[in-house]
Amino acid sequence: MQGFVQKSGRARTSRVSPAHLNALPRLTPPPPLPPTLPGGQEKYEVVIVGSGPAGIFASVLLARYGVTSLLTVDEKHSQAEIGHADGLQPRTLEVLQSLDLAHELLTQGCQFHEVGFWNAGPGNKGIVRTNRVPNISVPARFPHEITIHQGRIVKILNEDLERNGGRVQLGWKVIGFEIDEPAEEGGFPVVVRMIRAGKEGNGEERVVRCKYLFGADGARSVVRQGMGLQLEGDHTDHVWGVMDTVVKTPFPDIRRKCAIHSPEGSIMIIPRERISPKQAITRIYCQIEGEVERDQDVNKFRRKTDKPAIGDIKRIARERRKKTSAQQIQSQTKKVLSPYSIEFGEVEWWAAYQIGQRISPRFSQSDCHGTLRVHIAGDACHTHSPKAGQGMNVSMMDAYNFSWKVAHVLNGLTPPNVDLLSTYQYERLDIARQLIDFDRGFSKMFSGRIGDDHGLTHEQFQDAYAKMCGFTSGCGIEYQEGILVKNGRGPLKERGREVEYLTPGRRTVNAKVMRFCDGNPRDIQDDLPSTARYRILTLLPTSFKHSPDKYADLLTNLTSRIPSAFPPSMVEVLIFFPGERENLEWVDFPSSVKEESEWLVFGDGFRELYAAWGVHEEVGALAVVRPDGYVGAVAAVNEVAVVENWLGRVLAKVGTLGVRVPGSMQRSRP
Amino acid sequence: MQGFVQKSGRARTSRVSPAHLNALPRLTPPPPLPPTLPGGQEKYEVVIVGSGPAGIFASVLLARYGVTSLLTVDEKHSQAEIGHADGLQPRTLEVLQSLDLAHELLTQGCQFHEVGFWNAGPGNKGIVRTNRVPNISVPARFPHEITIHQGRIVKILNEDLERNGGRVQLGWKVIGFEIDEPAEEGGFPVVVRMIRAGKEGNGEERVVRCKYLFGADGARSVVRQGMGLQLEGDHTDHVWGVMDTVVKTPFPDIRRKCAIHSPEGSIMIIPRERISPKQAITRIYCQIEGEVERDQDVNKFRRKTDKPAIGDIKRIARERRKKTSAQQIQSQTKKVLSPYSIEFGEVEWWAAYQIGQRISPRFSQSDCHGTLRVHIAGDACHTHSPKAGQGMNVSMMDAYNFSWKVAHVLNGLTPPNVDLLSTYQYERLDIARQLIDFDRGFSKMFSGRIGDDHGLTHEQFQDAYAKMCGFTSGCGIEYQEGILVKNGRGPLKERGREVEYLTPGRRTVNAKVMRFCDGNPRDIQDDLPSTARYRILTLLPTSFKHSPDKYADLLTNLTSRIPSAFPPSMVEVLIFFPGERENLEWVDFPSSVKEESEWLVFGDGFRELYAAWGVHEEVGALAVVRPDGYVGAVAAVNEVAVVENWLGRVLAKVGTLGVRVPGSMQRSRP
Repeated sequence: MQGFVQKSGRARTSRVSPAHLNALPRLTPPPPLPPTLPGGQEKYEVVIVGSGPAGIFASVLLARYGVTSLLTVDEKHSQAEIGHADGLQPRTLEVLQSLDLAHELLTQGCQFHEVGFWNAGPGNKGIVRTNRVPNISVPARFPHEITIHQGRIVKILNEDLERNGGRVQLGWKVIGFEIDEPAEEGGFPVVVRMIRAGKEGNGEERVVRCKYLFGADGARSVVRQGMGLQLEGDHTDHVWGVMDTVVKTPFPDIRRKCAIHSPEGSIMIIPRERISPKQAITRIYCQIEGEVERDQDVNKFRRKTDKPAIGDIKRIARERRKKTSAQQIQSQTKKVLSPYSIEFGEVEWWAAYQIGQRISPRFSQSDCHGTLRVHIAGDACHTHSPKAGQGMNVSMMDAYNFSWKVAHVLNGLTPPNVDLLSTYQYERLDIARQLIDFDRGFSKMFSGRIGDDHGLTHEQFQDAYAKMCGFTSGCGIEYQEGILVKNGRGPLKERGREVEYLTPGRRTVNAKVMRFCDGNPRDIQDDLPSTARYRILTLLPTSFKHSPDKYADLLTNLTSRIPSAFPPSMVEVLIFFPGERENLEWVDFPSSVKEESEWLVFGDGFRELYAAWGVHEEVGALAVVRPDGYVGAVAAVNEVAVVENWLGRVLAKVGTLGVRVPGSMQRSRP
Repeated sequence: MQGFVQKSGRARTSRVSPAHLNALPRLTPPPPLPPTLPGGQEKYEVVIVGSGPAGIFASVLLARYGVTSLLTVDEKHSQAEIGHADGLQPRTLEVLQSLDLAHELLTQGCQFHEVGFWNAGPGNKGIVRTNRVPNISVPARFPHEITIHQGRIVKILNEDLERNGGRVQLGWKVIGFEIDEPAEEGGFPVVVRMIRAGKEGNGEERVVRCKYLFGADGARSVVRQGMGLQLEGDHTDHVWGVMDTVVKTPFPDIRRKCAIHSPEGSIMIIPRERISPKQAITRIYCQIEGEVERDQDVNKFRRKTDKPAIGDIKRIARERRKKTSAQQIQSQTKKVLSPYSIEFGEVEWWAAYQIGQRISPRFSQSDCHGTLRVHIAGDACHTHSPKAGQGMNVSMMDAYNFSWKVAHVLNGLTPPNVDLLSTYQYERLDIARQLIDFDRGFSKMFSGRIGDDHGLTHEQFQDAYAKMCGFTSGCGIEYQEGILVKNGRGPLKERGREVEYLTPGRRTVNAKVMRFCDGNPRDIQDDLPSTARYRILTLLPTSFKHSPDKYADLLTNLTSRIPSAFPPSMVEVLIFFPGERENLEWVDFPSSVKEESEWLVFGDGFRELYAAWGVHEEVGALAVVRPDGYVGAVAAVNEVAVVENWLGRVLAKVGTLGVRVPGSMQRSRP
């Protein structure tokens, strides 16, 4: 280009609008500023204890939602190298994608799409492959798990937190909290005490006040202890070893997830990321076999009863854990893998652990007015075995469920008579219980014998594995009826077992659609980003394309009147029509559709969406999606009142702002 | 998880191996270090002048390839807000993807998949849509263009450069260079003089020496002038206005690319990125109509000849450019868009320019021994109109073509008798000439009238537009036969016009395949990353699946003997078989396949690859792909010698290292 005369307006670098610059509107007074004088009283709207997956993820979400009065502390002095929970499940990937945080994990982690089942072959010649099937058997946008080490994931989240103005304060150990009763309305009643961690701390103390405390401080949670709770549940005496190493083996499924049962014991193989063009890490879970039964450990510890006491089992397992060595894991693996040889390279990490499923009886604690002030998440409220790759995922999903709710409450976006935060424990405790039950069953099944007279058949094991996928993938999670879930299928098709139709309480499954304004193909989940907004899904029936006029009032209602009854930007309206766009033009829609939802009108040109969501093309449907992507309610396409009423129960109306129902005031105190 | 005993090996954070940590092997002595004393003689292997798209992209590539002795300077004091070339074409996106740099552009830029053609309707009632078709009509992994502002692209590249240890030195203006003849072998004969830019510089001078100088310093290139060259070509008197603004209009294709011809003139609409959930920028190119003909400008400037001289045209155009205003662009747009109204918001940027196609007659200059020391790229060697969105793309592709070649030469990876760098000018000058011809035709066609007696019919225009897509998308670029391209189709199917079969000189088109080791679906282009390595593509015929033994020698040859004849890691071997994997196991391949190419064996399970590449399943084929993803040669599957000989002509053999052919020494001096 040459001969140029040009003139610029304001700077364009600042004009980009990534998904993460999308703070919520705030109807409450501004939050407190940090104290300007040293020693001044620090007040925060939210204090998060712990920067593992649950704590850092909650921090990321709150920072994106615009909660600036936020303190995240961790007693560690560095965030590197924490933990070895390295598996990300399909639903976690969908959520990370909804925040545009999945790319690095998808490209640099190890994806595994298949699982191999191996069992004893005929004639004592060692293991043979019984089957090889897709790892994920439910519809999922990313039909695979990913392994990448936890430090990397935390680093990605930490960078995003800092990009959004947040920061983890390292080296502060919380030692306790109390609620300053009677808690004052609009006050900061939770008093959190912490000290400088480590030797250099010299006992330096720090006291901060907050409205809400979020304990993501692990299995030995100080926050949980402060709530007077402990983890309750089973102890078993199965001891497992786990090892990350580079192996050399002719075993043909070494790059697949494998469940291997042989008379010599059981192992599980989890492929991990490549560390050079020709080398990848392999994770091996290996049951440490039989020694309890054979040696004198049991007699040494067993009291004079028929059944060993919990304490005994703990001690037996502790002894066996201590005896476990890397060599033992390797020799056990060699035995199970026969007739395939295996050589081990450098051992990157190994551990021995005892399976135990434990859970906290409550996740939340209120002040004397009933306002829920303290919440726990992740390992602080549930622990289980690592083999099914659930730990980091369930912890992050706890944080995901909690964060938008507390942000809505803080910003005054909930109606005065609804206790949105009560749904955190209601929904996540249920999931945690399912997790514990699942893990107990899975561990027992996996630790048991397969294929002989004493246990499951190969087919039973495989079938159970596939059924569990809904839970393990995170895609089958279903929240129960409550404030945020209105049961009932409206005009939707009957739920299929395989197909994840739109269902109140379940996440919105992905499908490809064609955007009307520009003809771009879109993954519909990308238009349901995690910005803490509610969405109305409007699935028009076929008749719309013949007589669009008949739907003009409905569409005006949905795109203009309803959203404007709620705080600005809080309700987005998506509109779908069946099949291709054919001759449809913008003039076929009332003007408010283009004004309010220009980028949110889609044709089902790929014939995926109506089918995937269970919507009859001739009938259509309405649905409301919660800020976390789970369906809140469904209705017939003309039942606008159902949607409006449901929204009115969970989201403040502009007209009613400041009006508080006296009898329920204690439930609405931000 | 509880009851944990664990032990860690070395740090795991450092064990990730992203695509960009992949330096080339170096067979030459180590490069010079920067001088330790102030005022010491600075020597670099490569000096890059300019940090626009061509300069920064060359810097990124060289840093990734491991060229650490690299200086990039720019006379600007800041990299922000440079230029307004904002379009990325499909091939550029493929290349950026091959470096894992496309994600942010794909998600945050504006993709446009469709183009609308609008022309005068019947009865003087204004424009009507003649057609709406896919924007990209050739096979491409990303079947759309992207717009995102140039500052953002340069920022992404700059971050990658810094992640790989490089850095642009801002505020240094190159004022000239000379070659210190006779250039010494292994020496640093190019002497580059620069001064501190800006007022604060106080004329501070700096002299650095280098082996290779890369001038990416724009249309007024000092490097090009130092080579004694100037841009040659046409001047025309078409003046165009361009404006980035937010508009409000019922025009239905405002989010699509549009070519609009009306009796009132021509405009082109280019959609741009959104800047808020309900606002996007629109770019409008608008021909400034008719004033030359109507007013006295022509008489004022025209000399007493029948045909205006170049100088006259320049002056006429300059006058008209100066007269152009934002208001003029807007009123012209309003006229053309009738009957649709349009309101303009804040004008973000606007410019007026005159179309002109100019080109440098040479891109490279040698020292007295014939070693090509100085090269130019981008606007330094070709300028043209901006409407077809080519500028930034062709510039970056210049850098992409150059960078791996200079890295190979510096690291001693080329055979002594081959002049790899001569292919830079050979290949890119040809493309630049095509660009100039294309742009001349396109501009003329676009500036002309459509649909009346004087110009093209609508159909002719549309057809021409589609034909041009191979060139504009970058996907149809074809390098001519030469050192790096061996013509001949071997056993491949005849070239189809639509289907981009494997073709020497053309890029390797993408297809989905199934990885054998783990069953992962892969885009094959992701396994041809831009790491400056050569690849052998081995497409086995169907008979392999019945009698794999018969191919054992071939596969051992390809995966073991051939790569080991060349420097380590420089030849990667990809193996494909037709259809599903069925009962294939690793034991069906010779052991070297798994050892050397475990992640590079693929089944054509999606039935895409053999079809897309034009390979008969019963026949198979071999091909060699250059480090830039262009096909070098194809052969029958058993013609290993063809592949080996071709590689031997462009890549140093391990056995011949250090052996130089005396007669050609001057061509091999790194």
